[in-house]
Amino acid sequence: MSRAYDIPGLKALIGPIKQEDNPILVKQKSRDFYWYSPVLKRELEAVTADVVVTPANEDEVRAVLAAAYRLGIPATPRGAGTGNYGQAMPLMGGVLLNLAEMNRVKSIERGRVVCEPGAILIDIDKATEPSGQELRMFPSTRGTASIGGFVAGGSGGVGSITWGGLRDFGNVLRLKVMTLEAAPRALELAGADLHKAVHAYGTNGVIVEVEAPLAPRYDWKDVIVGFDSFDAAAAYALALGEQDGILKKLITVVAAPAPHAYFLRHRAFIPEGASVAILMIAPHALDAFRAFTGPFKEARILFDSGEIKPEERAGLPPNYELTWNHTTLRALRVDPKITYLQARYPSDRGLEAVKRIHDRFGDEVMGHLEVIRFNGRVAFAGLPLVRFTTEARLDKIIAEHEAMGAMIFNPHRYTLEEGGMKQTDAIQLAFKRETDPKGLLNPGKMIAWENPDFDFSAGKNFLFPGLEARARAAEG
Amino acid sequence: MSRAYDIPGLKALIGPIKQEDNPILVKQKSRDFYWYSPVLKRELEAVTADVVVTPANEDEVRAVLAAAYRLGIPATPRGAGTGNYGQAMPLMGGVLLNLAEMNRVKSIERGRVVCEPGAILIDIDKATEPSGQELRMFPSTRGTASIGGFVAGGSGGVGSITWGGLRDFGNVLRLKVMTLEAAPRALELAGADLHKAVHAYGTNGVIVEVEAPLAPRYDWKDVIVGFDSFDAAAAYALALGEQDGILKKLITVVAAPAPHAYFLRHRAFIPEGASVAILMIAPHALDAFRAFTGPFKEARILFDSGEIKPEERAGLPPNYELTWNHTTLRALRVDPKITYLQARYPSDRGLEAVKRIHDRFGDEVMGHLEVIRFNGRVAFAGLPLVRFTTEARLDKIIAEHEAMGAMIFNPHRYTLEEGGMKQTDAIQLAFKRETDPKGLLNPGKMIAWENPDFDFSAGKNFLFPGLEARARAAEG
Repeated sequence: MSRAYDIPGLKALIGPIKQEDNPILVKQKSRDFYWYSPVLKRELEAVTADVVVTPANEDEVRAVLAAAYRLGIPATPRGAGTGNYGQAMPLMGGVLLNLAEMNRVKSIERGRVVCEPGAILIDIDKATEPSGQELRMFPSTRGTASIGGFVAGGSGGVGSITWGGLRDFGNVLRLKVMTLEAAPRALELAGADLHKAVHAYGTNGVIVEVEAPLAPRYDWKDVIVGFDSFDAAAAYALALGEQDGILKKLITVVAAPAPHAYFLRHRAFIPEGASVAILMIAPHALDAFRAFTGPFKEARILFDSGEIKPEERAGLPPNYELTWNHTTLRALRVDPKITYLQARYPSDRGLEAVKRIHDRFGDEVMGHLEVIRFNGRVAFAGLPLVRFTTEARLDKIIAEHEAMGAMIFNPHRYTLEEGGMKQTDAIQLAFKRETDPKGLLNPGKMIAWENPDFDFSAGKNFLFPGLEARARAAEG
Repeated sequence: MSRAYDIPGLKALIGPIKQEDNPILVKQKSRDFYWYSPVLKRELEAVTADVVVTPANEDEVRAVLAAAYRLGIPATPRGAGTGNYGQAMPLMGGVLLNLAEMNRVKSIERGRVVCEPGAILIDIDKATEPSGQELRMFPSTRGTASIGGFVAGGSGGVGSITWGGLRDFGNVLRLKVMTLEAAPRALELAGADLHKAVHAYGTNGVIVEVEAPLAPRYDWKDVIVGFDSFDAAAAYALALGEQDGILKKLITVVAAPAPHAYFLRHRAFIPEGASVAILMIAPHALDAFRAFTGPFKEARILFDSGEIKPEERAGLPPNYELTWNHTTLRALRVDPKITYLQARYPSDRGLEAVKRIHDRFGDEVMGHLEVIRFNGRVAFAGLPLVRFTTEARLDKIIAEHEAMGAMIFNPHRYTLEEGGMKQTDAIQLAFKRETDPKGLLNPGKMIAWENPDFDFSAGKNFLFPGLEARARAAEG
């Protein structure tokens, strides 16, 4: 497989920079959580890099990128590999640029932290804790995900109920990205320019530094509220989201039977048949939270981390590890046939849309809502759990969601466009022309680059030609 | 006037507690900013207490309230007297209970501060600054207003763009209130019980301690953005309010000609004809703020506290002293015929409602919007400036606002109900029965107590009979 690229030449050029070419280890590092999707599992199973290079600093990144340019070898940057759209999987092989060891927290100020891309989110929060601060938002993979990967491949998460998404103005303050050119440049992006590289999967520059805003740190309390119906849980969650004075970091709704069936370590707290709202509440908001919750006749507080005994709490994951994509992960561990979608429901009459859609699919699609701020409104995002049968049926479920008013960010596609807005992002494409003239950065992920004439309205999937050729070569 | 009450008897009962009965000084302390309203100015001109009593601690408050109960003397609690609905004006005379000297900040924790009621808001912020914290919200009278008065008579203010109003769950954590009974009790209110005493004008208990939530403190930057039209300024302000990732504390819109005409010390920055958005932006949000503002073709940054020279800045009031009721105050100083309304515009299509209403009244009503969070939505509150002619015309303007979809909290009325929701608040009434069985606390302000049969839908004003009788007695 590696015959296509001059890997020995690359090694000669980059000298002592840390690298690994044991095929088993390289393949391990060429993966993310793409296997959440049965579609991506089939399509990306064979994907592997030729070599993993692990730079220790910007100079080493520059050296690797210059060598890749000179030899025409693809380079795919990767943080911790916790994405699940195949974001950091090297469709064309080549160099896997592992940024995990560039993990320093470089400076902490009031409202700001500057990090290297490989810094793990929970480690950043530990570093900023003495200043009374923490990151505004993190994915459920906080304990393992890197900030560079979150910015390049994530969209929001725990904290989005207050701050909106990563792509909103103000949620990333500055990025330094390196180009893949003969003499790689380090470009500083701030303000409106951030959009060029946020959520671009590293296709148009390697993130080598992130400046992120900090919020005040609190000892958030984990609470789970149970309901007899998904609709009641959703209505409660939306109303709680709209309580401007009750400070919270997380509001998630998971429909029965999933909570009891899949949250194994919380089973003692969650009866069968309960749909739940999973919450993180600031300590000084607990009184107000309870006063707000009281009048909801159906609401029963099933779990309150401040009230239970330490021995009951031991071994329980934090609430955020029941939410966002950890909901999917826990379901998959119990039932490997489960997969999921990513949806956004309309801001107006969102509750009705959610109810209508879930009534339609019954037990085949289990409701999972994340209450977030979107354009100033409290709205539902969703990562519904789907009992997978066939790809055709999955496509049908997606099409029906869209027909009923939900927007689907398809997690069964590996391209930026198909997983996102299903249209060319002219700014990111223009930036790629500037930063990656040979098209070597994470190839195959930006349709606008690979096939400018691709018709998003034709209803067909994009198949990256290089991926197919590589797969055939691997078989042959 | 004082013959009606046994003031000498009161003095004998309360002994050495600090007091003042010089009529000129007593009358001074019996006032607030009621004169913003030409209606209240006429109605309340003659109002005065018989004696001002200034307790130093809870025991002294208890002694005064016990004496007032025993002798049947009204008692009206007062903070700094910065309200403008006559909230703390003693319609029936009696004791003015001046809480200004109970002004200690008692404890500061993560997310919380406990104060005595007379603590001035800016002093609380100074006390909490070393902990990196500040109050969530304050009125434009931050420099002079007390926290007890704010809780009893205010509704929100600077900070409401993030946190909503004072009456929202979580924006007051706990109150201790004292009853007016034979043996006054100190009652602790938290959670849903807070509603009993928040915004009750002290009619159902004297606030003797406030626990308030704290937010992170930032060195907020004052920015003023100019527009050629009020509509453009309003559209921009709403859009900025909906930017979840841009941390701000204040978004105010004031229509031309008011900014140039009335903001005298800012005149060099604000051209004639400019409508403005007056902002407080967190330092770490400035880049994002500028990136957001850039594409608004009409927007011109007229003033940026971070950019101007110290000598230009000297003598300028902070931005928040151009907003909320300070807008009214500055207009009144230039043109004594100005008065104002307090409005809330619909959350849906609020921009259209604001435009429709202001187009209708032209120069007679100058737009003044405060962008706030209300029930989870970013919405417009308004304190439009009105060129006053007659009370009948003012009533007509109010009626037309209401007919066009705005809710008016009439600042030309001194009762809780007429300045508020125009209906009986059963919870506050029930609490008054419990805390003030003789009806001596701030009499005349709660219609539900004074006249349970009052018909709010009849379109007539409530006239407090005691006020009329007192006024006649004063004349006779």
